[in-house]
Amino acid sequence: MEHLFSDRVKKLKASEIREILKLTQRPEIISFAGGLPAPEMFPVEAYKAMSIKVMDEMGREAMQYSTTEGYDPLREKIAKRMQASGVRVSKEDLLITNGSQQGLDFTGKIFINPGDYVLCESPSYLGAINAFRAYECEFKEVETDSEGMVMDALKEAIDQHPKAKYIYVIPDFQNPSGRTWSESRRKELVELANQYNLIIIEDNPYGELRYEGEAIPPVKAFDTEGRVVYLGTFSKTFSPGLRIGWVCASPLLLNKYITVKQGADLQASSMSQRVLNAFLENYDFDAHIRAIINVYHKRRDLMFSEMKKHFPQNAKYEISKGGLFAWVELPEHVDARELMKLAVSNKVAFVPGGSFFPNGGKENYMRLNFSNMPEPKIVEGIERLGKILSKEI
Amino acid sequence: MEHLFSDRVKKLKASEIREILKLTQRPEIISFAGGLPAPEMFPVEAYKAMSIKVMDEMGREAMQYSTTEGYDPLREKIAKRMQASGVRVSKEDLLITNGSQQGLDFTGKIFINPGDYVLCESPSYLGAINAFRAYECEFKEVETDSEGMVMDALKEAIDQHPKAKYIYVIPDFQNPSGRTWSESRRKELVELANQYNLIIIEDNPYGELRYEGEAIPPVKAFDTEGRVVYLGTFSKTFSPGLRIGWVCASPLLLNKYITVKQGADLQASSMSQRVLNAFLENYDFDAHIRAIINVYHKRRDLMFSEMKKHFPQNAKYEISKGGLFAWVELPEHVDARELMKLAVSNKVAFVPGGSFFPNGGKENYMRLNFSNMPEPKIVEGIERLGKILSKEI
Repeated sequence: MEHLFSDRVKKLKASEIREILKLTQRPEIISFAGGLPAPEMFPVEAYKAMSIKVMDEMGREAMQYSTTEGYDPLREKIAKRMQASGVRVSKEDLLITNGSQQGLDFTGKIFINPGDYVLCESPSYLGAINAFRAYECEFKEVETDSEGMVMDALKEAIDQHPKAKYIYVIPDFQNPSGRTWSESRRKELVELANQYNLIIIEDNPYGELRYEGEAIPPVKAFDTEGRVVYLGTFSKTFSPGLRIGWVCASPLLLNKYITVKQGADLQASSMSQRVLNAFLENYDFDAHIRAIINVYHKRRDLMFSEMKKHFPQNAKYEISKGGLFAWVELPEHVDARELMKLAVSNKVAFVPGGSFFPNGGKENYMRLNFSNMPEPKIVEGIERLGKILSKEI
Repeated sequence: MEHLFSDRVKKLKASEIREILKLTQRPEIISFAGGLPAPEMFPVEAYKAMSIKVMDEMGREAMQYSTTEGYDPLREKIAKRMQASGVRVSKEDLLITNGSQQGLDFTGKIFINPGDYVLCESPSYLGAINAFRAYECEFKEVETDSEGMVMDALKEAIDQHPKAKYIYVIPDFQNPSGRTWSESRRKELVELANQYNLIIIEDNPYGELRYEGEAIPPVKAFDTEGRVVYLGTFSKTFSPGLRIGWVCASPLLLNKYITVKQGADLQASSMSQRVLNAFLENYDFDAHIRAIINVYHKRRDLMFSEMKKHFPQNAKYEISKGGLFAWVELPEHVDARELMKLAVSNKVAFVPGGSFFPNGGKENYMRLNFSNMPEPKIVEGIERLGKILSKEI
């Protein structure tokens, strides 16, 4: 029956991270592999209280179909939060999605014709690469430095790929590299997109999880022509199990996302949207985020200081100023996929970095998550990894 | 910026039903337009109790990421229910989706190359037509009679369209026609698919809502070669606002659905799956469905008896033995889209049937929903519609 499959899925592979996550769910393994929030930070009691409140006050509406765009009070609250970060936006510019992963999938569906090029950071987020690839695009990886994409490299990439539709970026605490774009680079990106008539897809799941320095406005804040599509999510600041994210875009673009959402699954959960909205209404969300930051900050510091202690000198990294990940460059000859096998047999896990380069060829990176594991396990796990690295590289 | 859109979305239109639904949400309108369950039948107190139970017993897991395939205990319960309907299935054959609409979207993504033909009933479900169309297919509508697709017409369609990948059918209380396939026709369909090496997509949102006669096993029960993909949902028997449905398919096919789900939105809500599972574990789901049937049965009887009283003789219909809809054929010259405008100005609404014919050309049908409106409104609404019909056709 294989011949009946579409060309697009014939090329698809299951996500390597998801497969690795399955391997590493055994409790004896110290896993730095997933991008999981710390479960002890989930506001379980508050969620329970808000579920009761929603069911008491509007149970029937919460169980019924509702509009594709999303629950208006929730959209309003998201608009307000985005305004506070410097984006001029109203609820009409927002569509509620099943996490920002769905925004990525819709982006591919809306823009990509087979053979089109997507311009992305090198490395870039594996989940986005997989989502876009399902629409049969090619990728042009653009060189990045500690301030973001190198603009000359981006210009050259655009000149070389006139069929490119959009530039996909994660400007805050990027997955996997942990890097953050400078403000000036963000402005330059918008100017370049204006000049070349391109769309910018700004994926921002980690922006609120900053452990040092000053917040920088999103690229969307500098959008002068309505060509930045901003993808947000509550997965890292509230709960990923709810699957609530959003797309923020100008009307011409947002209308396509709404139409695509209709065909894809009609709407996000009426229930989850209302419970989350009740939480935002009745609790101090910023205080909740500060509590998360407090925990992750310590875990980040601990992971990097343990890495300094146990990793050999030729394992290189920059300290991530926010987000969930440490990104480690190993000597070029090292294959992190092989290291991963050794690591799992030593009961510690990470994600080999190769899959974050859509065009492949770079196997000497490791992505380590520091948000999910409690401190003693970070110490123990980095020590185990350090032993392997010292022996193998 | 329009030139940046993909070819597939350039052709997409917003769903007519969704747009009509927006119009008809004003409380003064008696709406037979949506496919909405009766909100007073939602088990609000039970849902609240089960939310509390889930948050108390496994709050952190319910808020965390989980596997793409879905929550195992829920998959097991669905497998058991399907076994009871005659399908040999285990939880490994199931993927949890955001309602069956997502199963439809994935079906298009997995099988359709631009220009491929989808074979479907005439008429067919508008939401499926829109989902498939997003992957740039063409449709071949196959003649149906009161037992299902006419097999000679189907054979001819297959011969004419050798590039067809699958046959899309809603064998139980079809949306919009209300018709149900006979058992013998189901078996013939599987034989034909085997013979021609085609996939069957069986969409069954209404099968459990039968008001008379004996249940007929799903087409999937007669699947001998693993080529029937079955789409199920809790939207009509529990709650559509949760967005929980499932795909049941043989491993070769299901693996593609799982991979596509990973890229599309990672997983269905961990929370909703657990609360639904707790409901199925702690309440009598069959008794709940019987209570729904009891209410809808009365509403169906009432709607058809009022139609008999108030509709002119040249409005033709068969009594639906289950599901949510009455399907009315008007004389050929009548344009139901024009009637709809008159109806809305008389504060009653339905869905014009034209959109259910993917190739168009048939405007003389109306779809009326009988599940959502309470009995006095059914009486009042059908009387209003009858007046309009008597005057206009």
